[in-house]
Amino acid sequence: MRREIPVRSSAGHYPIIIEPGLRRRIGLILKSLPGKRSYSSVLIVTDRTVEKLYLEDVVRSFDETPHVKIVPAGEQSKSFSVLEELLEYVAGCGLDRDSVIIALGGGVVGDLAGFAAASFMRGIDFIQVPTTLLAHDSSVGGKTGINLRAGKNLAGAFHPPAAVCFDPETFSSLSKREWRSGLAEVIKHGLIRDPELLSFALDIGSFETAEDGAAMGRLLEQSIRVKKEVVEEDEKEKGIRAYLNFGHTLAHAVEAEAGYGRWTHGEAVAAGMIFALELSERTFGIDLRSAEVEASLQKLGYDTRMYKNLDTRSLVERMKKDKKSRQGDIRFVLLKAPCEPVLMPVSETELLKHL
Amino acid sequence: MRREIPVRSSAGHYPIIIEPGLRRRIGLILKSLPGKRSYSSVLIVTDRTVEKLYLEDVVRSFDETPHVKIVPAGEQSKSFSVLEELLEYVAGCGLDRDSVIIALGGGVVGDLAGFAAASFMRGIDFIQVPTTLLAHDSSVGGKTGINLRAGKNLAGAFHPPAAVCFDPETFSSLSKREWRSGLAEVIKHGLIRDPELLSFALDIGSFETAEDGAAMGRLLEQSIRVKKEVVEEDEKEKGIRAYLNFGHTLAHAVEAEAGYGRWTHGEAVAAGMIFALELSERTFGIDLRSAEVEASLQKLGYDTRMYKNLDTRSLVERMKKDKKSRQGDIRFVLLKAPCEPVLMPVSETELLKHL
Repeated sequence: MRREIPVRSSAGHYPIIIEPGLRRRIGLILKSLPGKRSYSSVLIVTDRTVEKLYLEDVVRSFDETPHVKIVPAGEQSKSFSVLEELLEYVAGCGLDRDSVIIALGGGVVGDLAGFAAASFMRGIDFIQVPTTLLAHDSSVGGKTGINLRAGKNLAGAFHPPAAVCFDPETFSSLSKREWRSGLAEVIKHGLIRDPELLSFALDIGSFETAEDGAAMGRLLEQSIRVKKEVVEEDEKEKGIRAYLNFGHTLAHAVEAEAGYGRWTHGEAVAAGMIFALELSERTFGIDLRSAEVEASLQKLGYDTRMYKNLDTRSLVERMKKDKKSRQGDIRFVLLKAPCEPVLMPVSETELLKHL
Repeated sequence: MRREIPVRSSAGHYPIIIEPGLRRRIGLILKSLPGKRSYSSVLIVTDRTVEKLYLEDVVRSFDETPHVKIVPAGEQSKSFSVLEELLEYVAGCGLDRDSVIIALGGGVVGDLAGFAAASFMRGIDFIQVPTTLLAHDSSVGGKTGINLRAGKNLAGAFHPPAAVCFDPETFSSLSKREWRSGLAEVIKHGLIRDPELLSFALDIGSFETAEDGAAMGRLLEQSIRVKKEVVEEDEKEKGIRAYLNFGHTLAHAVEAEAGYGRWTHGEAVAAGMIFALELSERTFGIDLRSAEVEASLQKLGYDTRMYKNLDTRSLVERMKKDKKSRQGDIRFVLLKAPCEPVLMPVSETELLKHL
């Protein structure tokens, strides 16, 4: 079954297509994109891991063999040196403004290849072909970027893709930790905007769902719809898009403090969401059933208190460098009621007390 | 006398302000920008040369001492390594989305600092304070970027400035070659759109004009108006903005082939314009008075045939990598009549014959 969700962006509409086996039809999809001439050149960017699994399927979907660039797997590819090498490769392949870059892989490949597409000749088309559940989130909405030593995603661009192509079959190759990393973002979308999605995700969220096409399709579609609604309303993160950062203020600090790779992004986000839920309950004197959500997360295998072993002061210092921070204030996304996020300054003292 | 030209961009309007002594009032200008809250932090980017001349004047115009980053003077600063160092510095200074980067200097500083502002946290404000005549062109229109080994300006972003502040007094510190480099772009604006500006520039274009405030102000204003009209109509270079590339297809190839620094950008553009004028005359069988223009340029000190010593085949290969090229075709901006530019494919054979 094919599901298609159109997303409105500053650069026009782009489709999100969800269909089992879609990786074998990417070449066809490119030809069918509305308003596109045929592309002069195609370059696929992927990583060592995904190369072995799916590159051949995608390559064979094209009449003419596309260019391919393989980058190392993992967060370290979101760096200036890899970006520079990629852009020199893009130029060396002779891509021009009528060419397209395809990001085949997880969030790292999507963010890196997307920023390369945004920057090459000041912007050419790119297509997201996410192969992880986590990337269902990052591939929609046009955020691209790399890391600085000073922090994650500090250099980048808003550059909407020309299409996002999901083949849920690719999720069957995920490890349990990768699955959990992605599921945390689904749960986040449930917490900030869709109670039905929240129950559904907590209920069917076990690892085995990755093999269940129907459940997987529904989960993906509902989660993407939340993301779509938010980024359509606020593409450039001037307002409500910041709500998608629920759980992320602490999560980014935890990832950086523990060293990238120690915890997956979603594992850190799960802990960050429980922290933000509890902070919300205390701040607004309400009951958001944080204990219940935490129990479900733990049942799914998340360690929701892993930050307890980290240095509290360092975590707070790192949160001060968050992109939401303004003039030294740390700002958190809290819930003032179920599915009603607000962006609020939280004092250092308050944070130190609760961490 | 103060002249102010508003420019419409995708990010709203921004003012171009031309006023003698303006460098001593940049702090005030920032406070007066329409619709801006006060900036949380200010970082000035400049180069070793401009630092000695004007940095103190700009710094002293602020109530609180701004952050400063000095980069090496010259084209080599438009590189990944300098961009990365600059962005790490920006992050280290604690800039956030409410901060501003000021580019104080020529085109290199503007392009580099502009791309840093476009990329930092996916885009923060920046202000152009051009100190060369050449930068009167590059500072308007929102193009920012750095060079790849494969070619000039191949990585970058469209990121309109929040304001452009000209202090024509700073032009008195230009060398003759720098003056000529900038004047070529004024003459180009005349050739593609404004016959009055063309005569005026060829007439008063001698080096001494840099000291003549009134003539300088008029020259700047008329030249900027041409640029403004074009970029307002076609900010993202989907159509007519390419006309601003008149003379540049050969010029970029000459600069790269001879090695950056051997000829200034404008010196190469002057030669490129004469070549494009002659190619236009032959292509359309018309008289564009190319010999007359060439004589005027030579009188102003330009070597309009310097490419004759370079390898013709290499020049053509380099032109194939031009951003205007499509699917292997080299495309030139020609004039089908005075001030009527067109973008046309020109065959390799044709180019080899005429070079």
